[in-house]
Amino acid sequence: MENFVFHNPTKIIFGKKTIPLIGAETTAFGTKVLLVYGTGSIKKNGVYGQVMGSLLAAGAEVFEHGGVQSNPVLSHVHSGIEQARRNGCEVICAAGGGSVIDTAKAIAAGVLVNHDVWKFFTGKKSLKQSLPLTCVLTLAASGSEMNSGMVLTRDGTRQKFGFANRHLYPKVAILDPETTYSVPADYTAYGAVDALAHVLEFYCTSQKSAPVQDRLMEGLAMNAMESCLAVLSSPDSYSARSNLMWTATLALNGLTASGLGKVGCPMHLIEHSLSGLLNIPHGAGLAALMPGWLRFFTQHNSVRLAQFGRRVFNLQGNTEKATATAAIASITQWLDDIGAPTHLADLGILQEQFYALAAHAQALARIWRMREYSEEQIRTILELCHPGG
Amino acid sequence: MENFVFHNPTKIIFGKKTIPLIGAETTAFGTKVLLVYGTGSIKKNGVYGQVMGSLLAAGAEVFEHGGVQSNPVLSHVHSGIEQARRNGCEVICAAGGGSVIDTAKAIAAGVLVNHDVWKFFTGKKSLKQSLPLTCVLTLAASGSEMNSGMVLTRDGTRQKFGFANRHLYPKVAILDPETTYSVPADYTAYGAVDALAHVLEFYCTSQKSAPVQDRLMEGLAMNAMESCLAVLSSPDSYSARSNLMWTATLALNGLTASGLGKVGCPMHLIEHSLSGLLNIPHGAGLAALMPGWLRFFTQHNSVRLAQFGRRVFNLQGNTEKATATAAIASITQWLDDIGAPTHLADLGILQEQFYALAAHAQALARIWRMREYSEEQIRTILELCHPGG
Repeated sequence: MENFVFHNPTKIIFGKKTIPLIGAETTAFGTKVLLVYGTGSIKKNGVYGQVMGSLLAAGAEVFEHGGVQSNPVLSHVHSGIEQARRNGCEVICAAGGGSVIDTAKAIAAGVLVNHDVWKFFTGKKSLKQSLPLTCVLTLAASGSEMNSGMVLTRDGTRQKFGFANRHLYPKVAILDPETTYSVPADYTAYGAVDALAHVLEFYCTSQKSAPVQDRLMEGLAMNAMESCLAVLSSPDSYSARSNLMWTATLALNGLTASGLGKVGCPMHLIEHSLSGLLNIPHGAGLAALMPGWLRFFTQHNSVRLAQFGRRVFNLQGNTEKATATAAIASITQWLDDIGAPTHLADLGILQEQFYALAAHAQALARIWRMREYSEEQIRTILELCHPGG
Repeated sequence: MENFVFHNPTKIIFGKKTIPLIGAETTAFGTKVLLVYGTGSIKKNGVYGQVMGSLLAAGAEVFEHGGVQSNPVLSHVHSGIEQARRNGCEVICAAGGGSVIDTAKAIAAGVLVNHDVWKFFTGKKSLKQSLPLTCVLTLAASGSEMNSGMVLTRDGTRQKFGFANRHLYPKVAILDPETTYSVPADYTAYGAVDALAHVLEFYCTSQKSAPVQDRLMEGLAMNAMESCLAVLSSPDSYSARSNLMWTATLALNGLTASGLGKVGCPMHLIEHSLSGLLNIPHGAGLAALMPGWLRFFTQHNSVRLAQFGRRVFNLQGNTEKATATAAIASITQWLDDIGAPTHLADLGILQEQFYALAAHAQALARIWRMREYSEEQIRTILELCHPGG
């Protein structure tokens, strides 16, 4: 096991009827609250009313910053920062999924500095502090509710970059699985794909054996796949919704990676170009890349995915390569079963777009120091994600 | 999944050569430090020198409170509280295993109140604050380094009670697996038994299905058993020592129980009387109780242990009861393999002692509100832990 520091201070409040706690949890950090949310689903499913009611009952003065879109953009963060400053907000409260929480994190980080918040994402500035952040999660997917990362797209250049810093852990995250009952089937599936991708990327790219983390990741992968299928067949099953939600949170809260040493997230790297340039849903992009990237990766290293195949799918090939290949088939079958794309053509992406996508992704590879992901290699992967690739 | 709150703020620093960080991490909370440790093993293996050197280099004024024995006693906590008060200590630093860390927690809790710290253990007082605590762990076993619990024995009555409170999480825990190279085989095994018991108790006594937690616990149980065997055959294997250490920490850091609802720890309940009255090592007592308690438990509920048997040992009985029984055989075999006792006679405990042990344990059952554990029922369990039981 490699040396690591694990320090995740987020307080998780999980379960039914927990949203009314958001007011007291938030005003513990200040009464002037910037409430960040999306494009209206929380107004339809009643979450907005519950959050606002709880904040007001706790004595908060609430300033609203709605309108976060999926694949959230920098300009909307800028206007949120302005609003938070203008009103002297002391705490940010996010109500939504990963896009909303990431926007709230960027606002929390940006309020206290006099430079563009984008400089954190390009590595030009380091983050020393941020406003406290609380959140009410409404989508099982990104894990942002219990981690220190955020992803943002810059308008114009459509660069979609990520940044992580310990000051970005939410102070409190409320996870009520009932808020996800109204998430449609496709976005439910995309969320589960996101969680599985978080697990698979670390699992495959870790070089050393780390039995504790391996078993944790295998369990989370099984739960992500099983609970997604359970939710799709019974969308109002509290058991299924709660298992999917907690699985997605644990899939990227720092625990899986602790002790693995250097790991990468190559599917996310390339997907950021799909959703950044083409504005497709993040989880759909990951699904379309998953079988192809796994084929690419196992050309050179099939040991890790073979172990995954044995333990998660009970597969036994004649060789490590054969077991890994069978694991890819099982994963692809699951993607099919949940109605997710399995190659880029499913998203209407054509081969002639691969040059632009690869060039775009390579810019992020430089910032993330994934030097092995050259423009040419990314094109090779994209070809493998094409039907027949 | 049942509602839960998970909030574990302990910062874990894990790995080789990490002890020199203890000075800066500790003096961040104050420079007057009470250093708590045991009966001398850290002086032999070099940990004492490293900790003291780091504390002094960071500008600490160190007051020493050594001499913690396994099954630590209240009177030694009292003298530690006195010393901390007399010297105006601002922070407690523990260097040792669970007994040392628990003693340090009790001192940290006791310094700030004007009543006997024992009143926390008997439920007569509630804990509102405590001094900050840092620790350097030297034994993979109790999980105290990343949880909010402590266990103490009262001199005289030999009551061995436990208490948990959110103010008792260590601020920082340094886990260097190399510090455990000098732990002898028997105590290494007892530590692994403690970790397995933490998992098995929650796994068996949880009433509801909670797939995320189940898979986490199954993985931890497999790792505890495998890594203990690996350590015993290669005591200087960093890989084996590190896997055992991180497994034991995760086995009782709050994550496994989150969402399970009400769970119990009946083996610990009864074991506290063995080690409290007879001063035997905690893990040895748990090992001697484990097969018998599992037999008792599966008389009425074999579903949970049958699932455990299928997933952890790959067992397939004709009935749930048969699979659970086979799982008990596998666990007993593992206890044998690591040189741990498998029944009470291995510890020299005679049937005529069962009355006194059961009466003692029942007093704790009242405090822990485990009403189903009557004196008679505890005697029944003890009989099942006797050879031929």
